[in-house]
Amino acid sequence: MDTLDAPRIHIRQRIDRLRDAMREHQLAAWWVPSADPHLSEYLPERWQGRAWLSGFTGSVGTLIVTHDFAGVWVDARYWTQAELQLAGTGIELMKAASARSAEDIDWLATRMQPNDVVGADGAVLGLATARALQNALEARGARLRTDLDLLDATWTDRPALPAATIREHVARYAPVARATKLGHLRAAMREIGATHHFISTVDDIAWLFNLRGADVDYNPVFIAHALIEHDHATLFIAPGKVPDDVRNALLDDRVALAPYEAAAPSLAALPAGSALLIDPRRMTFAFRQAVAAQVRVLEKINPTVIGKSRKTAEEIAHVRRAMEHDGAALAEFFAWLEAALGRGERITELDIDTQVCEARSRQPGYVCPSFATIAGWNANGAMPHYRATPDSHAVIEGNGLLLIDSGGQYEFGTTDITRVVGVGAVTRDQQLDFTRVLKGMIALSTTRFPRGTRAPMLDAIARAPIWSAGIDYGHGTGHGVGYFLCVHEDPQRISPFVSPEPETAMEPGMITSNEPGIYRPGRWGIRIENLVLTVPDDVTEFGEFLRFETLTLCPIDTRCIAKELLSAHEIDWLNAYHATVRERLTPHTRGAARDWLHARTQPI
Amino acid sequence: MDTLDAPRIHIRQRIDRLRDAMREHQLAAWWVPSADPHLSEYLPERWQGRAWLSGFTGSVGTLIVTHDFAGVWVDARYWTQAELQLAGTGIELMKAASARSAEDIDWLATRMQPNDVVGADGAVLGLATARALQNALEARGARLRTDLDLLDATWTDRPALPAATIREHVARYAPVARATKLGHLRAAMREIGATHHFISTVDDIAWLFNLRGADVDYNPVFIAHALIEHDHATLFIAPGKVPDDVRNALLDDRVALAPYEAAAPSLAALPAGSALLIDPRRMTFAFRQAVAAQVRVLEKINPTVIGKSRKTAEEIAHVRRAMEHDGAALAEFFAWLEAALGRGERITELDIDTQVCEARSRQPGYVCPSFATIAGWNANGAMPHYRATPDSHAVIEGNGLLLIDSGGQYEFGTTDITRVVGVGAVTRDQQLDFTRVLKGMIALSTTRFPRGTRAPMLDAIARAPIWSAGIDYGHGTGHGVGYFLCVHEDPQRISPFVSPEPETAMEPGMITSNEPGIYRPGRWGIRIENLVLTVPDDVTEFGEFLRFETLTLCPIDTRCIAKELLSAHEIDWLNAYHATVRERLTPHTRGAARDWLHARTQPI
Repeated sequence: MDTLDAPRIHIRQRIDRLRDAMREHQLAAWWVPSADPHLSEYLPERWQGRAWLSGFTGSVGTLIVTHDFAGVWVDARYWTQAELQLAGTGIELMKAASARSAEDIDWLATRMQPNDVVGADGAVLGLATARALQNALEARGARLRTDLDLLDATWTDRPALPAATIREHVARYAPVARATKLGHLRAAMREIGATHHFISTVDDIAWLFNLRGADVDYNPVFIAHALIEHDHATLFIAPGKVPDDVRNALLDDRVALAPYEAAAPSLAALPAGSALLIDPRRMTFAFRQAVAAQVRVLEKINPTVIGKSRKTAEEIAHVRRAMEHDGAALAEFFAWLEAALGRGERITELDIDTQVCEARSRQPGYVCPSFATIAGWNANGAMPHYRATPDSHAVIEGNGLLLIDSGGQYEFGTTDITRVVGVGAVTRDQQLDFTRVLKGMIALSTTRFPRGTRAPMLDAIARAPIWSAGIDYGHGTGHGVGYFLCVHEDPQRISPFVSPEPETAMEPGMITSNEPGIYRPGRWGIRIENLVLTVPDDVTEFGEFLRFETLTLCPIDTRCIAKELLSAHEIDWLNAYHATVRERLTPHTRGAARDWLHARTQPI
Repeated sequence: MDTLDAPRIHIRQRIDRLRDAMREHQLAAWWVPSADPHLSEYLPERWQGRAWLSGFTGSVGTLIVTHDFAGVWVDARYWTQAELQLAGTGIELMKAASARSAEDIDWLATRMQPNDVVGADGAVLGLATARALQNALEARGARLRTDLDLLDATWTDRPALPAATIREHVARYAPVARATKLGHLRAAMREIGATHHFISTVDDIAWLFNLRGADVDYNPVFIAHALIEHDHATLFIAPGKVPDDVRNALLDDRVALAPYEAAAPSLAALPAGSALLIDPRRMTFAFRQAVAAQVRVLEKINPTVIGKSRKTAEEIAHVRRAMEHDGAALAEFFAWLEAALGRGERITELDIDTQVCEARSRQPGYVCPSFATIAGWNANGAMPHYRATPDSHAVIEGNGLLLIDSGGQYEFGTTDITRVVGVGAVTRDQQLDFTRVLKGMIALSTTRFPRGTRAPMLDAIARAPIWSAGIDYGHGTGHGVGYFLCVHEDPQRISPFVSPEPETAMEPGMITSNEPGIYRPGRWGIRIENLVLTVPDDVTEFGEFLRFETLTLCPIDTRCIAKELLSAHEIDWLNAYHATVRERLTPHTRGAARDWLHARTQPI
């Protein structure tokens, strides 16, 4: 049995053992973030301490344990899941306004007495979070201690580090050479006045070095840290992960290897006079603490984050091709689905997952899913992060709406798409909701905006047509997407929540999702998601304007539309989109898939 | 002659004298913010050091002087004005992206060498700015010195502190008693765990104590600091400013008076164990430095800022009446303007200012203008912060657009309105721009949004119809407005710029401007501005929704509209608005004003 899927009684014992360790170290509270030393979204099992301790397996959530309380702070996406998973564990579900709100910090600080000590493992505590926590505690006269890892003592069969082998990203799909990327980064370092630059974030490292790995599900990344200097660079990585040819190729580019554990000591050993560039949002507290006092620390956004977000023309050409393959796979899948349902076959949400992944796996360049498929029938679709399990899943039967959010990793691009299809009869209310979501999606798809517009500012454009019906959705409208990398890639977020990088402007080359939704708990969920590329539009006397090019190629189910709610302009957009989808996917489909494609791309 | 309006040669001499003082203290640079010890927008002359030193008189701008450079960082609103005022002074115009960008700090830090010392007067340096400056300089190995006031040495005839008498806000217009406000504030302090709370911001002090003054133009405020404790409060204010009856009334509410200069010593003398609540965005560095080390400092937004922003039902009823008087004054003014132009009279932009202020002054409760009238004819209207002067102003002649942005302080409310009227023939291009602005204004006026929506997120709703034509405007869409207080009142801003308080949600009771625009340099400027009140709308299964009630009552010139650009919904809004304006203003107007009102509120 997966240690993360433990019975309630085990959870209680784990919390008890943690409290014993807290008492031993005279700690008033222990803080467990959802993080690893790389501050990744998808954590290797070793660092899933919050999930192991609490039983809540969602991707984001903070566990706070005091001697008379334990609770997990969770944002709206995971309330339902957390309620189920925490029931009977003695751990409370604390509903947070958003994934980035500081309610957990405020709660803890308010309850601490002067001289209380709160513990957290500095090795998995983000620098920005640590500072906020320190400030809040100090204002109360309490303090933060970060040199303990109580989890190691508590978690006796804690998993080891992942050890998958790394490889070069296929050269013809990595149009910018490693040496060129390093050159650009060094130019940025010079501009900032940095002699050294430390990187912990695994997708930034994979991108910068044109390497890929398989240490976590869904994202082709590997655990490593990197220290860039002007004449060479060091990759801190377990030696067993690096094949000889990769090692030699790295050496050719003056990239040396060092043990994974040598990263912190290397920071401690930086010579006096060094100027170290770090990104406080992308580095842990422990690494920051490791830096010697005589080193000048420059805090800026990691330049690789910016470089990575702006896909090159060659990368974009590859992504367009990935979208054709992805659309062809979806046409195959939907043709199968409609036919199978038509034959009266018993189809479950798990079958959807299997079939959509299999359809993608038949496409060239496919590597793996880019995240766990969400297939939600009717009420299950109302949970934005629902996942069907062997124990709990629905059969697609009767009438209703089926929401499918899925994506693929291809050697030449990452996809992420949500479609909702009607099964049997679709009600008027469902059509109204579907059309409202579609209006929001089209509004953002067709917006034009000045260069320099910050990504969060665009959110209300998608939301306004939904707000006007007295409806809202509890997630952002768009997230950045990587190039054969993470399906959630910062810095740009089209989101109403206080963003980690609110200053991020939309820039040409960025790929972002466009995914408004409407969720009626217990009834249905609707989300329509395309990936869009930011491209130049006009240059006017008011400056440079940008717009979005829709990348995703897959029909939107017109049977679910209340046409009278759409403006002429919206109908034109939809018909033009479907004409493009038909034209681009026809060469990649045949038989039933092609028939389905042609049927589902008819103009309305 | 006004010392702030000095010939170029004086400016050069002043900068030379400043550099002498810098040399004496071995400073590599001197930093002059646009600020006073209260961080006000409108500065008493004594603290207009940046204007005195540089000759640039705009409301926002930072002067940096090194031994071989002097420059003023100015946002887009003031580029034209700064270019004119700085020409020939040897001081460079440095164009900043926005009033809150940190380009000045970055510029300075980049140019400093290790061990360089930058000076700034801590008494007028905001705490948040000081910290950003310190961090940037320290990263370069340079440092900040804040204990000098070089201006005092340089500015020999520096004006004294303003000495206007204060008064109680008229009781029937101050529906919440001082004691009640203090009680709410103390409850908030208890919640936060504060024993003391220090306030420097003059509008917060005026609001909290229900006092008004006349120390600066346009805003009925007075210079003072306040220290709130649980059993009493202290107002630090020059004794000559306080009449005996006010002093006694304050004493009745346990508010003691202390000399203005005693504020910093009082902070230094706080007893050990005190917990002092301060707002880092609303306090200077010098005051923060004055706080004794043993005092626990709690940094939060000043609770008064929140309280003040949410007008009570009684205040709102008063504001609605103020709007009727203001609209009646404008009807008189516009009736005069049209008649005078019709008679062929020579009317200048200065006459507009005079007449609009005179029309307001005939209304009950009127105190003074709420800001300097902007009356811009054609090309002058393209400068968002244009001000006609006796030396430089236009005559309203020929065809074109006249932009008038004006407002009044009434005992029972503060107004701020912009209208653009056509004179003679209006071109098709002018109509198109006017209609685009109107569409943006209507879009925001009619939006519905969930409670909790942060104010900046609404900006794109007004901007989208303007963006779609490849046009943008360089200012925010909306600012908060006070209740017989400042016409620019934080915390809410509907703005695309990184906001000082980005977390601020729109709340019922807030009054905000709604003022999109289009500016064609050298040709014309269009801005349509109403004040809107945030009010509750529906409660749905998705939560509480809010909307805007338009408060401002004045016709929008339908002769400037390209009707075919408006949707049926927009036409309905406009006709309904005009019906309301006619109904509400008719009882307050007569004769020519009433005729004008009826003519200009006809449905389209």
